[in-house]
Amino acid sequence: MAAPGGLPAFIKGKDESAFIVHEPVEPEAELKRFRMGASLITPYELFYLRNNLVPRGVASRSDYRLRVEGVRRPGRLSLADLERLPRVVVPALLQCAGNGRAFHPHNPDGSPWQVGAAGLGFWGGVLVREVAKLVGGPLDSARFLTTRGSEDSANIDRVERSIPRGKALRDCLLALELNGAPIPLAQGGPVRLIVPGYYAINSVKYPRSLAFTARESQAPIMTEKYRIAPVGQAQRPSQPTCWAMNVKSWTTSPLTRDRVSAGPVEVLGVAFAGEDVVRRVEVTTDGGATWSNAELIGPDLGTAAWRQFRFRFRAQSGKEYTIASRATAANGASQPEQTRPNEGGYKSNGWREPAVRLRVG
Amino acid sequence: MAAPGGLPAFIKGKDESAFIVHEPVEPEAELKRFRMGASLITPYELFYLRNNLVPRGVASRSDYRLRVEGVRRPGRLSLADLERLPRVVVPALLQCAGNGRAFHPHNPDGSPWQVGAAGLGFWGGVLVREVAKLVGGPLDSARFLTTRGSEDSANIDRVERSIPRGKALRDCLLALELNGAPIPLAQGGPVRLIVPGYYAINSVKYPRSLAFTARESQAPIMTEKYRIAPVGQAQRPSQPTCWAMNVKSWTTSPLTRDRVSAGPVEVLGVAFAGEDVVRRVEVTTDGGATWSNAELIGPDLGTAAWRQFRFRFRAQSGKEYTIASRATAANGASQPEQTRPNEGGYKSNGWREPAVRLRVG
Repeated sequence: MAAPGGLPAFIKGKDESAFIVHEPVEPEAELKRFRMGASLITPYELFYLRNNLVPRGVASRSDYRLRVEGVRRPGRLSLADLERLPRVVVPALLQCAGNGRAFHPHNPDGSPWQVGAAGLGFWGGVLVREVAKLVGGPLDSARFLTTRGSEDSANIDRVERSIPRGKALRDCLLALELNGAPIPLAQGGPVRLIVPGYYAINSVKYPRSLAFTARESQAPIMTEKYRIAPVGQAQRPSQPTCWAMNVKSWTTSPLTRDRVSAGPVEVLGVAFAGEDVVRRVEVTTDGGATWSNAELIGPDLGTAAWRQFRFRFRAQSGKEYTIASRATAANGASQPEQTRPNEGGYKSNGWREPAVRLRVG
Repeated sequence: MAAPGGLPAFIKGKDESAFIVHEPVEPEAELKRFRMGASLITPYELFYLRNNLVPRGVASRSDYRLRVEGVRRPGRLSLADLERLPRVVVPALLQCAGNGRAFHPHNPDGSPWQVGAAGLGFWGGVLVREVAKLVGGPLDSARFLTTRGSEDSANIDRVERSIPRGKALRDCLLALELNGAPIPLAQGGPVRLIVPGYYAINSVKYPRSLAFTARESQAPIMTEKYRIAPVGQAQRPSQPTCWAMNVKSWTTSPLTRDRVSAGPVEVLGVAFAGEDVVRRVEVTTDGGATWSNAELIGPDLGTAAWRQFRFRFRAQSGKEYTIASRATAANGASQPEQTRPNEGGYKSNGWREPAVRLRVG
């Protein structure tokens, strides 16, 4: 049950004042832009929420079982079985594929996320390839890892996603911890698949099964949603799905709400490029007429994380500035000026829509 | 006011079940060893507490002022003044100088900390050298940075520590955030000095003044405490103080409380070396008779953080194991078998005392 405008009871320990709640039941809630910190990590209490279904079906830690199929020795694993495997820690950004849907001009169905459906966690757990090894390795016929969540759901609306076999065996993990503590239910605990560099829909919460499969899942969440379809057309399995994140950035401070006075101003923001490295971030203060290189700061936590950037300029009294950032990946891909619309409102990465207007006092 | 055995009201948002409370008023509380995570970061709710005085005197964020002295243009800075300076993010381990005091054999005064007075945070803020630059730079005569906290205190028991000028200007920061959120009062917010690689007593909470001084502070916390004195002798200013942390490690899992069954066992732990790099971590399962190299895992967050390590062995049914870790720094320094006792019970780093006995079922 939700308090009006609040979060439901199964969501514990969140700082509710920090969120824009788009949908109070499942729930869907993004972090307010001015609450995004400037120290890389997103703490649990500020981590956005986007659940496809209320997770009624999740077992307790001791009862939790993961079915593993499409391997030479299929079976069920307990949390203790997973905890005996070699541990890894991966800093990984989770971003909803619909983050920035508000910036698609055709008013797509679904929550109008702005920039706040994203957060960086340190995920501690075990590699999928070690899990697979424990049960004899994937069948030769398998081309995908298909993971199903523990939500109570009819077969038709089940939460089940597929990713390429090679990706699953390269760097995906079953996480047991977020930022040094057991993963709370709201963020997909006790165990969550983490697919570094991919949109978060692929990082299936509380998986009940991992299956190495010859075909992609036939669940509508795989076939009819998260497909990049032309505006006005139905989404189809033949269209690209939301796997690796595209190159993107936005500024986190200052924002229009901040009183900025004349003198030096530090613009801060975050940039990432899915599975690629961020090569450059540029900042404009005049709405895109001119651009300057920003400085990447802070520890480099790898491609699956975001980098922080800063850019300093001297604000003049009485002037107005329009501030935006534009990231370029090592492969040369750069953010377009405007998000390229698609029917579902996915993969928004235009630099203009999240631009910030500042009026200097 | 404290609930019996609990934490006082000014400590908000901690997971009280995770702590051993040594002193309920100021308070002093260490993280239970089995609650130390395996994903590097320590979230606020699990960050240990060691306050020297109840911080009654801390101003609100808007009223906060920092006096800067011993510079060419001494003055007072607000939080907004600090926020305009170039931002940095530094992953830094805080460890109480008395962590492991319980392992000194002579029962020193002070809380008998075991291993839990340590935590790793991402600290976002501004470099001390940028703060100094803003006010004209340190006076030539200055050899130390002397920082005083905002605690209400008579002059005699004030919280005031000095560090070398070169260290202050090299990598110290005034942090405004811990792990992506404003630093809570309990952890020293709204602003905390962070001295990377030094014992946490030097990372003065809610500083009211930064002063570049010719001499070290004459506060007893500098002159009569945190000095490495022979057991039975008074601590004196001529003895070494607790600045850079020494090389140290401990295991975090499995612990004696865990039921371990025959088969592969993964030993996890953390290692650090103050301002130096951890070159090697070894693990013993037979109480020190034989040692093997552990594997350093996870992101390398720099010398000011800890590294995580893992070591795998095959446990045999009915056998007993005594597990310990021993870290070696790049400079060749290694943990001794037993902590070298000193009057105040500081700088414990013996490998034997935190060893863990495991009986395999």
